[in-house]
Amino acid sequence: MTKNMSRWEEFYHSLTPPSGFDSSKRQLQEFCSRHQNKKIVLVTVPYQDSGGTTVPLEHNTVRFVDNFSAGTRGSASAEYFLHAGYAVIFVFRLKSLEPFARHFTGQTFLNMLEVRKENNEHSINVAVAVKGNNLGELLPILQQYQDAQNSGRLLQIPFTTLSDYLWLLRAASECLSDFGPKAMLYLAAAVSDFYVPTDRMPTHKMQSTEGPPTISLQLVPKMLKPLVNIWVPKAYVVSFKLETDTNLLIKKSREALNKYNHNLVIANILQTRKYTVVFVFPDSDYEINLGEEEIKNNVEIESKIVSDLVSKHEAYIKECEEGNNS
Amino acid sequence: MTKNMSRWEEFYHSLTPPSGFDSSKRQLQEFCSRHQNKKIVLVTVPYQDSGGTTVPLEHNTVRFVDNFSAGTRGSASAEYFLHAGYAVIFVFRLKSLEPFARHFTGQTFLNMLEVRKENNEHSINVAVAVKGNNLGELLPILQQYQDAQNSGRLLQIPFTTLSDYLWLLRAASECLSDFGPKAMLYLAAAVSDFYVPTDRMPTHKMQSTEGPPTISLQLVPKMLKPLVNIWVPKAYVVSFKLETDTNLLIKKSREALNKYNHNLVIANILQTRKYTVVFVFPDSDYEINLGEEEIKNNVEIESKIVSDLVSKHEAYIKECEEGNNS
Repeated sequence: MTKNMSRWEEFYHSLTPPSGFDSSKRQLQEFCSRHQNKKIVLVTVPYQDSGGTTVPLEHNTVRFVDNFSAGTRGSASAEYFLHAGYAVIFVFRLKSLEPFARHFTGQTFLNMLEVRKENNEHSINVAVAVKGNNLGELLPILQQYQDAQNSGRLLQIPFTTLSDYLWLLRAASECLSDFGPKAMLYLAAAVSDFYVPTDRMPTHKMQSTEGPPTISLQLVPKMLKPLVNIWVPKAYVVSFKLETDTNLLIKKSREALNKYNHNLVIANILQTRKYTVVFVFPDSDYEINLGEEEIKNNVEIESKIVSDLVSKHEAYIKECEEGNNS
Repeated sequence: MTKNMSRWEEFYHSLTPPSGFDSSKRQLQEFCSRHQNKKIVLVTVPYQDSGGTTVPLEHNTVRFVDNFSAGTRGSASAEYFLHAGYAVIFVFRLKSLEPFARHFTGQTFLNMLEVRKENNEHSINVAVAVKGNNLGELLPILQQYQDAQNSGRLLQIPFTTLSDYLWLLRAASECLSDFGPKAMLYLAAAVSDFYVPTDRMPTHKMQSTEGPPTISLQLVPKMLKPLVNIWVPKAYVVSFKLETDTNLLIKKSREALNKYNHNLVIANILQTRKYTVVFVFPDSDYEINLGEEEIKNNVEIESKIVSDLVSKHEAYIKECEEGNNS
């Protein structure tokens, strides 16, 4: 490590920006200047559970395998933020779930279509249309998607590696700093705590004839620290804590708040995360749950999370403005 | 390890079948009995590169990260086998690319749709249709998909873990043994050579405060051995070899043929796999390439791979039948 550099500085210092980074940065700047003075949120989608990974490293595999989610939390939340009027920057791992499209994965979409032949006077017109019995499900989602596109309120930026993600996180944060308290960061991408340093990777495929390998993982520097203190000091910052052990959940969430001085940790347990989360503030906490009726009616917990957050954010903006005026 | 058991027997002995396995098995049996005496192929899609994993463990990350593919080889090949008249069993990792649907990932599909309002005498009808300028691309694929569905020639079975995959592989193979030489196994799922044994995984999420962990990987038993010798002794078996080092490619492919006694290894280099593969037989090998014109015209190498394979398989069936009659 270079002398006097903190771990995060060293991280950016030692890595080169990914290809395409300049173009992403321009998109971010253009988007932010177009939505000046509006409420804006950066939604990041889990680095490690996007697309589902395959080598289970723990029994209750939080970090490396996630059969439950391929980015549902982030992509669903982005939809609800758009619905609440926010401009949304959606930073997601390539091939993970995207807002609106997430409802129609795999062959779902092809199954909804039918070929229609229309006899005109002179020719047969072929059209492909959505079947009548799928319209009820598709139409509202399509209209919300088209509204987000037409109003230019959704910017999606994909990434593939951890390094890509960290470069984008800093660039997006720096753009958002101009928004002061009107910016929210909704960091569903609780970055993997560990990574394999590039210089310790073998260049070629590991040969199985050499016997089982052992892999040493390194700690990823905690970017929340510079993010909260330097990059977006006035923004409303929400991080996530995913654990499998209920006893550790609140304790570790509060430790994170004390360490990073941000506004809120949304804590959840892997097995119950679709139905219950805990909002942990520095000096209070409460649960947000889906009731039985809500589960039956396919209500998504992200709608309640975002709805609660929007009012917390509103209060925060007001508080900051009053602080400035007094 | 239990005395006198080989590694693969031990594997099935020590693991319980996944939930849903009985239902998958019934589907396989029903499908196979419906297509008796026809040409049939089992296509398996990479275990480790389906959906893209996230923790790079090697520089040229063959095993754990694949930004290039999320199951393109398998899903494209399945389409071409259907086109060639085969019944196709497609065993794929959940969330990886599926035949036909692979052409319309993410928001591609939503971008193709438009809402049409039709004024009738008494009411306004709302319909959703594919835009005219997307019809040319969509229609042929949709028609091939619907044909595969209507003729009942495509069976898709998803899996999530390595263990799921290995149970399905054996069950599918056993169903295919009745087809004799008319069955082909196209094992694009070159199973990860390594896995983390269940009994060595920590139960809860690894805590980063405990410092970087070290992970010991175990060798996965080579299932090609019992597959070729016991499960489907008469079938035409194709395996894949993916390397990053050209010097090792042919040598290691031929070693595999010598070891397992199957029919063909399709060898490819990670960086060039979309444009060139090598067919390696016990005593000969040749390349299959895409020419510049073909690349420009978006020809997929899978179309050439499958076309070549179909004629090889035809010759193999004939040879076996003649062998039986003489």
